[in-house]
Amino acid sequence: MSSNVQISGSGGITAPTPQNTPLTQAPIALGLSRPTVPDISEDNEGEAGAADESGEGLQSLAGLEHHMLGMVQGKLADLLGKSSGYIESLPVEVKLNVEALKGVQVKQNELQNQYKRECLELEKKYLGLQKPLYERRNAIINGKAAATTAEIEAGEQASIKEDEDYTPLPKDSTPAANGIPEFWLTALRNHIALNEMITDRDAEALKSLVDVRLEYLTEGENKSGKTLGKPGFKILFEFSKNAFFDNEILEKTYLYQEEVGYSGDFVYDRALGTKIKWKEDKDLTKEFEIKKQRNKNTNRTRLVRKALPTDSFFNFFSPPEPPTDEALENGEFEDEELEELEEKLEEDYQIGEDLKEKVIPRAVDYFTGKALHYDMMDEDDDEFDDEDDEDEDDDEHFHDDDSDSDNDVPVRRRGGPTKGRGGAPQANVNPEECKNQ
Amino acid sequence: MSSNVQISGSGGITAPTPQNTPLTQAPIALGLSRPTVPDISEDNEGEAGAADESGEGLQSLAGLEHHMLGMVQGKLADLLGKSSGYIESLPVEVKLNVEALKGVQVKQNELQNQYKRECLELEKKYLGLQKPLYERRNAIINGKAAATTAEIEAGEQASIKEDEDYTPLPKDSTPAANGIPEFWLTALRNHIALNEMITDRDAEALKSLVDVRLEYLTEGENKSGKTLGKPGFKILFEFSKNAFFDNEILEKTYLYQEEVGYSGDFVYDRALGTKIKWKEDKDLTKEFEIKKQRNKNTNRTRLVRKALPTDSFFNFFSPPEPPTDEALENGEFEDEELEELEEKLEEDYQIGEDLKEKVIPRAVDYFTGKALHYDMMDEDDDEFDDEDDEDEDDDEHFHDDDSDSDNDVPVRRRGGPTKGRGGAPQANVNPEECKNQ
Repeated sequence: MSSNVQISGSGGITAPTPQNTPLTQAPIALGLSRPTVPDISEDNEGEAGAADESGEGLQSLAGLEHHMLGMVQGKLADLLGKSSGYIESLPVEVKLNVEALKGVQVKQNELQNQYKRECLELEKKYLGLQKPLYERRNAIINGKAAATTAEIEAGEQASIKEDEDYTPLPKDSTPAANGIPEFWLTALRNHIALNEMITDRDAEALKSLVDVRLEYLTEGENKSGKTLGKPGFKILFEFSKNAFFDNEILEKTYLYQEEVGYSGDFVYDRALGTKIKWKEDKDLTKEFEIKKQRNKNTNRTRLVRKALPTDSFFNFFSPPEPPTDEALENGEFEDEELEELEEKLEEDYQIGEDLKEKVIPRAVDYFTGKALHYDMMDEDDDEFDDEDDEDEDDDEHFHDDDSDSDNDVPVRRRGGPTKGRGGAPQANVNPEECKNQ
Repeated sequence: MSSNVQISGSGGITAPTPQNTPLTQAPIALGLSRPTVPDISEDNEGEAGAADESGEGLQSLAGLEHHMLGMVQGKLADLLGKSSGYIESLPVEVKLNVEALKGVQVKQNELQNQYKRECLELEKKYLGLQKPLYERRNAIINGKAAATTAEIEAGEQASIKEDEDYTPLPKDSTPAANGIPEFWLTALRNHIALNEMITDRDAEALKSLVDVRLEYLTEGENKSGKTLGKPGFKILFEFSKNAFFDNEILEKTYLYQEEVGYSGDFVYDRALGTKIKWKEDKDLTKEFEIKKQRNKNTNRTRLVRKALPTDSFFNFFSPPEPPTDEALENGEFEDEELEELEEKLEEDYQIGEDLKEKVIPRAVDYFTGKALHYDMMDEDDDEFDDEDDEDEDDDEHFHDDDSDSDNDVPVRRRGGPTKGRGGAPQANVNPEECKNQ
């Protein structure tokens, strides 16, 4: 996901310099209630979605995390300030105070939970305020209304502000309700990850895509339905009549877990997609293999075709399913399988987030390609950070000798804590001589 | 910053598996109005902080970005859907509609700007709601009040929820107003990046740190002062009387630019720090070199000491200054200098953000070390992403032949857009045979 387009740091014609490489991350969309991806671990204790009323408990404190905790109490913690050994050495009276602080923290976490929900409400409020503008955009794109002179003037002013050499359109041309053909297909194809999902076959179907919009779920609503009353959002893809499927709207729904995670952000629960009603032989998510079959009795041959899953944008509506805790506990997943699933889940959540935070709010910038170079700079910046990291080969190696070797996680740490360099001796030194040197 | 502690992917005792490695990012703090780092570019056009009323203009669309735009209009855009060549080929009537959409976008951006300001207000509101809890925490830490039985019970319940083996403290012990010694020093030392900044000498001074708290700036206030009326926040470090400096409070202030950036998030403007009034010979940010000096007339020697800057946590209060546009235009910075400055700025902003979003809200978790393993998992996860990326050696290479070779940015892209695989021939195929295969 994060490196589909890269600026090569080596082997290129010109070595990267601050002039030709992005030094800093371009501003990226960080949503108000941007959720995080939950951890998958094979020996997850407790039930899925078990409410943690205090918000204080560790979410899926299992396997690795237990191990990491072991390290915190072990060697690493010795390096990193006072370990929990320090806390254990405290007199009972002080330990009581530490427990009291944890008690205060429970209340702080409750407020944080409340705060995140207000953030989500604020997001919803502004989606409502944006709605007339989204509807206006939709009308212009689909030729339901003609653009006004004021809109065109405001747009041209923005174009001139961006590019001094922008040539204004001829003044005598008259706006008409004629729409912008292939607007959404073009916009989606200017998003790096979405473009990779869209095949030429998909493009034919996506020419009928007339709107992409966002809706929020209402928490507690439709508890018996598929969304289980969870908070979250959905992306609606509206299509005009087309030769591929009968649905007018394809939906992708992203559910959050009810409780915010340790850091105070929502955590993804799962995604759901509309079942596409493909017209006969039009399923873009399948390709067909032709096989000869011989009838043993008649000795005649005939051709039979077999449907095989294939790459398609429309697989977006059949999202990967996170493993259940039961399946993990029963060891139903191979390591590689689990890793692959995890990657797929993360990609799927990321695309949903990009649609929500970037493509829908700034569709015209994706249509023109303006958004693309910001997206590329984000990715390039990530790349360069990586290369810097690789140069640091002088890391020390530590690992936890006490741990189960099956779970052993070698840790390398870049140097120890900086040592104090000691004060200067003060005898025989004239303090006056030290000034302004 | 992002890799001080790493889980080694190779050379360890056990190869990483989904069981012993963090598969997904642990929840990380994503603040409501989390600002982004502005781009530094040497030929920045326009004035620093020039208000962009529409919010539509590109921020520092210069140098590289112009070049990237060139690529968008060139080869890359051919791969990524319709290039702007497509837009140029549209009839004037459709182009008018595109400009109209840009006009609508200007209004959308205004709403986004308004939204971000409401987010900031919501942050402030909840800081206010948290205040009594922060004050209570402060009273317990500094022995100004005894913990209540209810607080201790709530804390112990949280401890049991986290760790079944937690041993409750003896019931007969009586809470007293005796505080928690070295609470803040211990908490800061359990934050990876802060720990690296704290020398043993610093630790002596930080034993006197009695509170760390957050305040927001009020936009438009104190316009003639150092903060120029900009929005932002400050971190206050309160000290008890100590042998090192006379200040009671050391402040670090982070200013945002007035206008939100392209993505709709605040962008950092600069940071400011309190000037520390060091007691004589106590400046922890200096080390002293002793030199012999001979008096030419008397031929006597004496020892003179020279102050040299040295690593110290307290350099945090002398933050790096972002380069002015004028300095960049005049080429006053070497490439390497600029890159180094950029890194320092990013680190400084990141630490401020971590204090604001993580350490202050969850100080007790940093004190106990619980927060540390979440932080480590964040970093580890980044590492593993990197190693995956390195494995992909089969990238294709593209670069823009039309571009100025001085600015040439080789781009490697992981494969082209997925090709459609074509439908299956339908003759001689019995559709009935295809079902459920």
